[in-house]
Amino acid sequence: MVDVDKVFGFIDSHYKDYVDVLGSLISVPTVSAVGEHMDEGAELVASLLRERGVKVSVEGFGGHPVVFGEVGSGDKTVLIYNHYDVQPPEPLDLWESPPFEMTRKNGFLFGRGVADNKGNIAARIGALDALMPYLDELGLKVKFVVEGEEEIGSPNFLNAIEKKRDFLVAQGGIWETGYVGRTGRLGITLGFKGMLYLELTVKGANRDSHSGSAPLIPNPIWRLVRLLTLLKREDGYIPIPGFYDDIDEEFLEMADELIQKLDPSQLEKMKDDLGIKEFVGGLKGFDAYKALLTSPSLNVCGIYSGYIGKGSKTVIPSYAMAKIDIRPVPGQDPGKLLEKTRKYLVENGFDDVDIEVHSMYPSGYSKPDEAIVKASISAAVDVYGSDPQVTPLSGGSGPIYMFTNLLGIPMTGAGVGYYGSKSHAPNENIRVEDFVKSMKHVALTLVRFSEIL
Amino acid sequence: MVDVDKVFGFIDSHYKDYVDVLGSLISVPTVSAVGEHMDEGAELVASLLRERGVKVSVEGFGGHPVVFGEVGSGDKTVLIYNHYDVQPPEPLDLWESPPFEMTRKNGFLFGRGVADNKGNIAARIGALDALMPYLDELGLKVKFVVEGEEEIGSPNFLNAIEKKRDFLVAQGGIWETGYVGRTGRLGITLGFKGMLYLELTVKGANRDSHSGSAPLIPNPIWRLVRLLTLLKREDGYIPIPGFYDDIDEEFLEMADELIQKLDPSQLEKMKDDLGIKEFVGGLKGFDAYKALLTSPSLNVCGIYSGYIGKGSKTVIPSYAMAKIDIRPVPGQDPGKLLEKTRKYLVENGFDDVDIEVHSMYPSGYSKPDEAIVKASISAAVDVYGSDPQVTPLSGGSGPIYMFTNLLGIPMTGAGVGYYGSKSHAPNENIRVEDFVKSMKHVALTLVRFSEIL
Repeated sequence: MVDVDKVFGFIDSHYKDYVDVLGSLISVPTVSAVGEHMDEGAELVASLLRERGVKVSVEGFGGHPVVFGEVGSGDKTVLIYNHYDVQPPEPLDLWESPPFEMTRKNGFLFGRGVADNKGNIAARIGALDALMPYLDELGLKVKFVVEGEEEIGSPNFLNAIEKKRDFLVAQGGIWETGYVGRTGRLGITLGFKGMLYLELTVKGANRDSHSGSAPLIPNPIWRLVRLLTLLKREDGYIPIPGFYDDIDEEFLEMADELIQKLDPSQLEKMKDDLGIKEFVGGLKGFDAYKALLTSPSLNVCGIYSGYIGKGSKTVIPSYAMAKIDIRPVPGQDPGKLLEKTRKYLVENGFDDVDIEVHSMYPSGYSKPDEAIVKASISAAVDVYGSDPQVTPLSGGSGPIYMFTNLLGIPMTGAGVGYYGSKSHAPNENIRVEDFVKSMKHVALTLVRFSEIL
Repeated sequence: MVDVDKVFGFIDSHYKDYVDVLGSLISVPTVSAVGEHMDEGAELVASLLRERGVKVSVEGFGGHPVVFGEVGSGDKTVLIYNHYDVQPPEPLDLWESPPFEMTRKNGFLFGRGVADNKGNIAARIGALDALMPYLDELGLKVKFVVEGEEEIGSPNFLNAIEKKRDFLVAQGGIWETGYVGRTGRLGITLGFKGMLYLELTVKGANRDSHSGSAPLIPNPIWRLVRLLTLLKREDGYIPIPGFYDDIDEEFLEMADELIQKLDPSQLEKMKDDLGIKEFVGGLKGFDAYKALLTSPSLNVCGIYSGYIGKGSKTVIPSYAMAKIDIRPVPGQDPGKLLEKTRKYLVENGFDDVDIEVHSMYPSGYSKPDEAIVKASISAAVDVYGSDPQVTPLSGGSGPIYMFTNLLGIPMTGAGVGYYGSKSHAPNENIRVEDFVKSMKHVALTLVRFSEIL
């Protein structure tokens, strides 16, 4: 039997080392959308793994490199998935500390990626160190796969999965990220929505013009705003024909059951936190959870046209652009959603709109009775002192389908973040306390997983 | 009698000096929206005037400095209005030469401000030099007023006008800019629309959020695009109640008469040039001219929200912004238009939108039978070899009302630009040939003006 007290004792007395590991990861600005410092980021992860005896390879598959690691020699294998890339830090002026210099303040850690998900890389390295003496006893092999393109939709990861199919065999896996809820319960996510990220460009005249000619020269902004109003009704409904079709019935049943166990008061607190009066369409309680966790979504991430600097410039811009994320749920094919969207635009007179696809992948999920999920839930009860909040699907996206659907590896998702982590936004942060708990949770999940198998 | 051949001879043999003067003006990046290098720009104009014997003062009125100049001692006075500020050069990547380094190529001059309107400052200095020996004979006093805030709506120029009322007495004036049409006829503009430049901001949550929560968290982009679709119909009509009210009847009659003499084929060429199939609402011929030259306009100059960088970022932005220019015509009060717009937005549920006013002033125009206008038209026939194309009002804006309405000075508007000058856009340019002709036209206008008075 593994002495769990000793494992936890190691973590309690060494956690500061892993905070330092996290600091070193944050200091490399691995914004995959920009694509600089990516080799450096991969090499840092590789060397961190290597120095604790993990057998490491760094490989390219047409995009930013992927780090593979393997340690232990048992016949039970767990696969830990992470990514060393992060979202862009913009808007920079809203950060209260430099995004790429980790700042510690009153028990919090700030920096781009502390929650999503370099904090998880560091915590899992800590868990591995704590568990290293027991790997043989557990009969456990731990594999790592750390990619560098998750935040841009993992365009080359499918290629990696196919080429490394022999390496990527495991009976269970741990997903990259996760958050503690407002009541202190650990959030465990069984799946993620897919992603269809589009950039739409509407063109006007062949160059910018003086806006004195506005009564005559068509302004593409008017067309773009008309196009966008077609994509979502005020009540939140997406009127693209067939947008809500093809959703996996089995998933919906499982989801309904799990949603009944969630605590809707957390959603009310989220509203207060964000300073909003009402959710879209006045959604509340379990209906809000259902929309968040089982419905495909469509959002505008950004719009741009013309002059947006200080003061005034009078111009008719030559083009207008919008970035849109669509998130399919289990059963939905993002390629079909793209075609439905394209057809809808054409039918509404927008046949001249340029559509660039930045990323496209489907949703994936695991069932609650899988060994790795059961291990993760049971470990959460011990470490967090309460039942975890198990969600069928995150509102967010991740290429988990490659593991669940393509490789057939059940996955569990939990991590170092909390409800106030501001992932993807300025002042991304985690609590040191959660960081420590997550290390313990990962370690205990691996122990329980070995015991159940 | 002034020997016009000698005047023109001087210009033909010295024009290169004034191209150099223009180059020196372009090299100071006097973008008033940004506000750097403005003192330097004003001082350059002042020293150019001073070195040819013009009595100069540079004065501040709460904003960027204004240059005043006076030369000659006759009892007939002409006032030349210009501005040394320019529009922002963005988008920079579309410029084929540095915007603040004048580039000469195949008879063209490129740079921010060559047409609007540093080229006119240089040309008028050339005209003055050519005419200097004859000022006493003509009984002419020439006054200059060169401001630095025209491109941001002249927020402090009214203050300057009021404080310098004694200086600003003249029987006629020459406006800052103008363009030669496609058939080689000089464009003479008798007035300008006013300006009401607004920045609208719609707010959502108190911070950017991960767009996984899009089914719940309101995205201000959806509200902004709905708001914008309310401001203009697809056929170009502005549905703000009362938007077309209060237009000066006398102006409309005069305008109708002048528009009948314009050449609509130029508008067709403009479409080809810009690569557009149709004007807004399918407007054509005299109707298109009427919309352009007599209707108040409303345009979106820019929109911004969220992530607009390379690749993808998945975010629900916390605010969305649009910059809007509204151009009143003679008789319309921009303050009333602002209130009508505000009321319309509130009535449509947009009572929470932040409206910042960047500039606000009314339209102004002169009648064709004023001495300065007659002089300008007659000089155009001689210099350009054809009747000028006289427009009642420019589609663009300028604070000409301060001269025509407040000071009671009739103004004529003509200048060095041509139909392809790309004012306010990348690759702003003029033709050297037009530059030389404009110098001659200004000189001859002053001669004829003195003769008529």
